[in-house]
Amino acid sequence: MTIVPERTRPESAITADEVFAAHLGGKLSTGLTAPLQNARDLAIAYTPGVADVSRAIAADQTLAARYTWANRLVAVVSDGTAVLGLGDIGPRAALPVMEGKSALFKTFGGLDSIPIVLDTTDVDEIVETLVRLRPSFGAVNLEDVSAPRCFELERRLIEALDCPVMHDDQHGTAIVLLAALRGACAVQDRPLADLRVVISGAGAAGIACARILIAAGASDVTVLDSRGVIRLGRSGVTGEKALLAAVTNPRGISGGPGEALDGADVFVGLSSALLPEELLARMAPGGMVFALSNPDPEVHPDVAARHAAIVATGRSDFPNQINNVLAFPGVFRGALDAGARRITERMKLAAAEAIFSVARDDLAADRIVPSPFDPRVAPAVSAAVAAAANGDPDSE
Amino acid sequence: MTIVPERTRPESAITADEVFAAHLGGKLSTGLTAPLQNARDLAIAYTPGVADVSRAIAADQTLAARYTWANRLVAVVSDGTAVLGLGDIGPRAALPVMEGKSALFKTFGGLDSIPIVLDTTDVDEIVETLVRLRPSFGAVNLEDVSAPRCFELERRLIEALDCPVMHDDQHGTAIVLLAALRGACAVQDRPLADLRVVISGAGAAGIACARILIAAGASDVTVLDSRGVIRLGRSGVTGEKALLAAVTNPRGISGGPGEALDGADVFVGLSSALLPEELLARMAPGGMVFALSNPDPEVHPDVAARHAAIVATGRSDFPNQINNVLAFPGVFRGALDAGARRITERMKLAAAEAIFSVARDDLAADRIVPSPFDPRVAPAVSAAVAAAANGDPDSE
Repeated sequence: MTIVPERTRPESAITADEVFAAHLGGKLSTGLTAPLQNARDLAIAYTPGVADVSRAIAADQTLAARYTWANRLVAVVSDGTAVLGLGDIGPRAALPVMEGKSALFKTFGGLDSIPIVLDTTDVDEIVETLVRLRPSFGAVNLEDVSAPRCFELERRLIEALDCPVMHDDQHGTAIVLLAALRGACAVQDRPLADLRVVISGAGAAGIACARILIAAGASDVTVLDSRGVIRLGRSGVTGEKALLAAVTNPRGISGGPGEALDGADVFVGLSSALLPEELLARMAPGGMVFALSNPDPEVHPDVAARHAAIVATGRSDFPNQINNVLAFPGVFRGALDAGARRITERMKLAAAEAIFSVARDDLAADRIVPSPFDPRVAPAVSAAVAAAANGDPDSE
Repeated sequence: MTIVPERTRPESAITADEVFAAHLGGKLSTGLTAPLQNARDLAIAYTPGVADVSRAIAADQTLAARYTWANRLVAVVSDGTAVLGLGDIGPRAALPVMEGKSALFKTFGGLDSIPIVLDTTDVDEIVETLVRLRPSFGAVNLEDVSAPRCFELERRLIEALDCPVMHDDQHGTAIVLLAALRGACAVQDRPLADLRVVISGAGAAGIACARILIAAGASDVTVLDSRGVIRLGRSGVTGEKALLAAVTNPRGISGGPGEALDGADVFVGLSSALLPEELLARMAPGGMVFALSNPDPEVHPDVAARHAAIVATGRSDFPNQINNVLAFPGVFRGALDAGARRITERMKLAAAEAIFSVARDDLAADRIVPSPFDPRVAPAVSAAVAAAANGDPDSE
């Protein structure tokens, strides 16, 4: 397909009528890999021919990977509890988003994909349901599940299913943020390890971003939730946050965003909490701001630019768009290409490096990541992820 | 699409290699109803545009029917316990058959469809699983589930789900058999009510066929299982068979196939049990034989033709092919077109009548049903089913 890169402000002209018209009847369809035009086609694809294939799989279950679509089919699974910025709107209202996600898998990763929206929010029931469905698909993209349930759900699905499982709101975001930060570091010729990083937001994305930055070599990461800096001993710091406290905030800061931002080099906004300009002014000069909340960034990019040398948002109408679509199609494609049963930390780091490698040829302060429509990205990511999987015993 | 009617013997030239090659990677794919080519497309189909649609559905759940694909998506559901003639081969081995079924839904009914193969055979768990998945689809075609579990499973799914549910092995077969019998009656100018009908096989299809024939006016139906004529008081006649015994065998026959076939006008084979020619010879002259087991009919059509005026099988290489594809695509399409929540007896009878109506223009002893590839069939069936649904309070 032809993909037209675009950096203009396209949404401005989009009306609600146009959006609803585009959603009539849904955005997905199923099709046949070969048409059924006559009795001969039918006898091959259905009875009696198909019986040969079923008999072969019954004798050797591994042949299902070869002779069905399931092995390369991504289930986009949601319970509708944390949809976009809309919160817990339920599975039916989540479905248009999951259809969109499936459309992105097809367009960018060349992977077939079906949305599975669940009328339960119970972690045990979701795991049980997907275990029962397991023969129907080959990978699970978990989407828009609320924190902290999402952490337990992802962990338990990874244990229960012998196929790639990834909660994209966590790891897709983290991979693209790391890629962007690598781009920003290259523009400024500064090592990641030297930067003081502040992450505002300790939900799914915030925690995963902190983890991947640390895994990639960041040595000074501080995370804020709505009560301030996350540190051991503070009230409300339990579960995932306690694990996070143990590996972040090396200088033992306490307080709120102001204390955290004093002299910080990098701000990562993943909380929808507005960032007042006077706090931004406390950052070290020449810093980087990633104001990733959608549709309204924590700080307007024009304001951020007064205090930071590099500014990125989630929006397509400003430079440096941090968009998960740079990661997840290639990550799943690479994992499935490699026959991986797990998406490991090493594979995620490889994905970030691959996105960065595409940007590297043409880096600038306003080009730290490739465009979401850059056709080089998904193949680079999938190749890097597959290579990382092949060398990683944890992926098996 | 162009559909080429064909009455020749196509399978003869099909090799196993050809079958396996056609199944490489599976037979289905997912696609987009409109391409995503640039940031503007993305902003409509995904964020931020999709949020308008999700918000609207959250406020009014009925809008999911309008703005997602689920409402017209058929889930082809199987636990792999009674696949073709292969028996309990499990969900993975069943999947190629379900993919084929989904391909038929698309080709003949214009309906999107996904296979759901389940790694459980527990009726409670299957019902529970589909209830949880309910927001993901709009109808359930139950397929290749073993008897007698299939009766309870279908009944419980119909109770639990507010959408069309049909076990095709029961009702698809019954609808097409009734259509064919109507065609045969028209050829012979005999009323259905006057015929003595013997059904060999009291599995899913046999029981459903007996029921629909009685609902359509047959007054003398006798059903055989492996122990002989099903009648009240006989050992092993419990559950569905006891219900059947109450409405069949009006002349109180006891014994085996020989006693049942004495003077019978119609033999319907749905059991894979071979029918010896000497038993066939006990039928009344000028009768009808429907030897429907696949791939090997209960009696070879050439042998049957020595004793019956009209012979039908499930095979495409003989005249009068009784193929479920004549029914299920139009039945589901009509039910969904009408917004029906149930597939009622009246809708099934209307489907049979519609298939017969297509055959009626060109009836002959070897043309009692239309070809599976006759493009008039599915539209006729769906229109008739939708009309029947609209007039039937039980469908709501």
